[in-house]
Amino acid sequence: MQQLNRTSSKVALVIGAGDATGGEIAKRFTREGYIACMTRRNADKLQPLIDEIEQLGGKAYGFASDARKEEQVIELVEQIESSIGAIEVMVFNIGANVPCSILEETARKYFKIWEMACFAAFLTGREVAKRMVTRERGTIIFTGATAGKRGAAGFAAFAGAKHALRALAQSMARELGPRNIHVAHVVVDGAIDTDFIKDTFPDLYAKKEQDGILNPVHIAENYWHLSQQPRDAWTHELDLRPWMEHW
Amino acid sequence: MQQLNRTSSKVALVIGAGDATGGEIAKRFTREGYIACMTRRNADKLQPLIDEIEQLGGKAYGFASDARKEEQVIELVEQIESSIGAIEVMVFNIGANVPCSILEETARKYFKIWEMACFAAFLTGREVAKRMVTRERGTIIFTGATAGKRGAAGFAAFAGAKHALRALAQSMARELGPRNIHVAHVVVDGAIDTDFIKDTFPDLYAKKEQDGILNPVHIAENYWHLSQQPRDAWTHELDLRPWMEHW
Amino acid sequence: MQQLNRTSSKVALVIGAGDATGGEIAKRFTREGYIACMTRRNADKLQPLIDEIEQLGGKAYGFASDARKEEQVIELVEQIESSIGAIEVMVFNIGANVPCSILEETARKYFKIWEMACFAAFLTGREVAKRMVTRERGTIIFTGATAGKRGAAGFAAFAGAKHALRALAQSMARELGPRNIHVAHVVVDGAIDTDFIKDTFPDLYAKKEQDGILNPVHIAENYWHLSQQPRDAWTHELDLRPWMEHW
Amino acid sequence: MQQLNRTSSKVALVIGAGDATGGEIAKRFTREGYIACMTRRNADKLQPLIDEIEQLGGKAYGFASDARKEEQVIELVEQIESSIGAIEVMVFNIGANVPCSILEETARKYFKIWEMACFAAFLTGREVAKRMVTRERGTIIFTGATAGKRGAAGFAAFAGAKHALRALAQSMARELGPRNIHVAHVVVDGAIDTDFIKDTFPDLYAKKEQDGILNPVHIAENYWHLSQQPRDAWTHELDLRPWMEHW
Repeated sequence: MQQLNRTSSKVALVIGAGDATGGEIAKRFTREGYIACMTRRNADKLQPLIDEIEQLGGKAYGFASDARKEEQVIELVEQIESSIGAIEVMVFNIGANVPCSILEETARKYFKIWEMACFAAFLTGREVAKRMVTRERGTIIFTGATAGKRGAAGFAAFAGAKHALRALAQSMARELGPRNIHVAHVVVDGAIDTDFIKDTFPDLYAKKEQDGILNPVHIAENYWHLSQQPRDAWTHELDLRPWMEHW
Repeated sequence: MQQLNRTSSKVALVIGAGDATGGEIAKRFTREGYIACMTRRNADKLQPLIDEIEQLGGKAYGFASDARKEEQVIELVEQIESSIGAIEVMVFNIGANVPCSILEETARKYFKIWEMACFAAFLTGREVAKRMVTRERGTIIFTGATAGKRGAAGFAAFAGAKHALRALAQSMARELGPRNIHVAHVVVDGAIDTDFIKDTFPDLYAKKEQDGILNPVHIAENYWHLSQQPRDAWTHELDLRPWMEHW
Repeated sequence: MQQLNRTSSKVALVIGAGDATGGEIAKRFTREGYIACMTRRNADKLQPLIDEIEQLGGKAYGFASDARKEEQVIELVEQIESSIGAIEVMVFNIGANVPCSILEETARKYFKIWEMACFAAFLTGREVAKRMVTRERGTIIFTGATAGKRGAAGFAAFAGAKHALRALAQSMARELGPRNIHVAHVVVDGAIDTDFIKDTFPDLYAKKEQDGILNPVHIAENYWHLSQQPRDAWTHELDLRPWMEHW
Repeated sequence: MQQLNRTSSKVALVIGAGDATGGEIAKRFTREGYIACMTRRNADKLQPLIDEIEQLGGKAYGFASDARKEEQVIELVEQIESSIGAIEVMVFNIGANVPCSILEETARKYFKIWEMACFAAFLTGREVAKRMVTRERGTIIFTGATAGKRGAAGFAAFAGAKHALRALAQSMARELGPRNIHVAHVVVDGAIDTDFIKDTFPDLYAKKEQDGILNPVHIAENYWHLSQQPRDAWTHELDLRPWMEHW
């Protein structure tokens, strides 16, 4: 890392780069000179993404880090800040939606969904915010869902976690906005073009031909747009939804 | 309990009867012939309340039960249903609001606030709902707060827990309504006339003279009203707020 | 009217008593000693309702008054206040939902739906509020709908009017609450048991057997409940929905 | 206009280009090859804006058109479509906020605020949508305000109009989205850098030095962004707010 110039030492940290969305967001920021730091529980799986970014002329690092573990999060942020660069942008992109009747929902699953989609957001958001306030600048973007705005039968766990995430984003925005930290919440409403959807919901995936599922590249463009808004006109929340989605 | 008649074997379970609100709700239901079952972590403190209800001719039982512990919740519901009566009404009334900057918030406190105000609601709501669906009737009321609808600086933990609670209430209502279980969410917006407010926020408490803080007796009346709504006209959510409250 | 005693000179004014809901609300308040003043465009149709109330021992007056016409509203309120009694409660109960594609919606109909469901509420609410503030007490309740919270395909006109009505209710509540006027908004979500539904939507009406449509008597009970809340615990908004309604 | 090429015959219609925001939006689209068609009640005042756009190499037309008058709106859209080009983008940008106590609000002003901020949006939105559905493409953006989401003391008229506008935007989006028309609603929360603010609220304007009021150029950038979103990831609503704004 000896030859890092000033531009390239700006870090975009993507928590949860395990799916296509996190990966495309990381790529989008490296195209503009950011260094992508990406986490997932198994870092080996990040290698193809790192290779792809480097072939495009970008810089990227992968980290095996469990965002639900406070000590791991603290260490991750410390390591990046001390050896790679200032985290100018953080994107939190972990979710976990496994619908279940309230009558059958286990305490373990209810907890884990909150832990992944909300508690990890709190830990990473807090740690990164601590650094950003010292520099008086930065952008933090949380990936939300429609379930963050409305409960639904079978979605007590997921809706609970996503509601709590939205509350976190709002609370952080109101506290940190006046300290020049831009906190935003993106409400993704619809299936995303991922291997998971392709394999698990082939009927849903079939809508891809008509642009009926979200393209991660297009999602990433909106994250980039948010990060570039001048501070007199910041967006806290926007939704993203395929044109044909019923809502 | 051998001589329980049919009327008096209807149980109103109040989870979190440690403050004035839970106590008044319990009393309100006993006035109408319900047996109050009340929980708090230290059951001894419930004795004055039980005495008061019995002097008024009602029946009440206190339970030391930690609503955050699955096994304790399962045991509590089992014990009440097998030895006291059918839980026709459950009121969840635990909250914990300790504001803090997001930069200073500890993982432990963030977790505990969620555990008390949301996870406990999930555990108790689920266990009670399992019984209610077998009888195809029942009422479950969650005590929420304005923080359940909007985040605020310093309130990431409390707003997160209350948002998640509201999502739980909505999700349960949508799933269980068609099974004849009435699930409601009460948004309390303002200080309540409790010893805690009296001792900690004397300026706030001074508004009592002008009816500027909520009287637990009046809160309880609304819970009773909700429980009595015929099923063609159920309320899922209502707010309660002193007339002079700014909102 | 010479022998009106103090109790019976309290007026409950129901704007739009043309359907079952307005009528039941009027009856509910007369049961408690209020004089019902009821309006609809054709006052002759109110006579059966007046007769019914009088047979039950209550007092009621009907007025032909177009709530969309400022001068008529001013005159109505003046007439009631000077010759019948103080308007302690006003219920606004006019709506008009005629769905239509945005592409086909006429300017005339779009305007009329707003005029009936919102502008009339503004005129009557304002005139009554002017009297209430001089007495420093009173209750104003607006009948809203789910369309007041969410737009939908084919509902631009109705949702627009009901959104504006909800904004009116919120704005009035925030301004007049601290002047001891209780302003509330009731979100009715579902079909009501009326002749209109019976004749026009027989399939919907068939749900009545399972309590699947709202009983106006039960709606009225909630308006009464709202009007009786002590001012330390006022509800601004509650929803009413049949147990089996999908939402 | 004989030599218009394909690119330049795309029209961006800005309804209400009387202030800086409408003007900057028009300029932003002309930079990308759109022809700007701009309306305000007095078209003469548009001439400086047209001159500016033409000096930058763009094309723009001004129209004196009262968007509250159905026949004028129909004629405007017909004239543009037949003699200038296809309206690919429409931005509705009329508002009128004159706060007033509900007790003092006149029927005339309450009506006019709705007529300008909502009825005109309905008329122009409908007329433009009729053309867009025949081409199966287009973008319609409504400029909203925080008052469209929440009432406030003194804001019954403005909040009502903006709530109704938001309902219009939602209803149109749900109906027209599946017909490939992108309908969006931008919630502007804060003062905009305009002559009006400069002259009327100098204290507010003083926040400009710290980026505390919205720059119309930056607002326009977001409208451009919305219009460019691929249809698998459309935003229906986003907010714009200065970093230091309290909310």
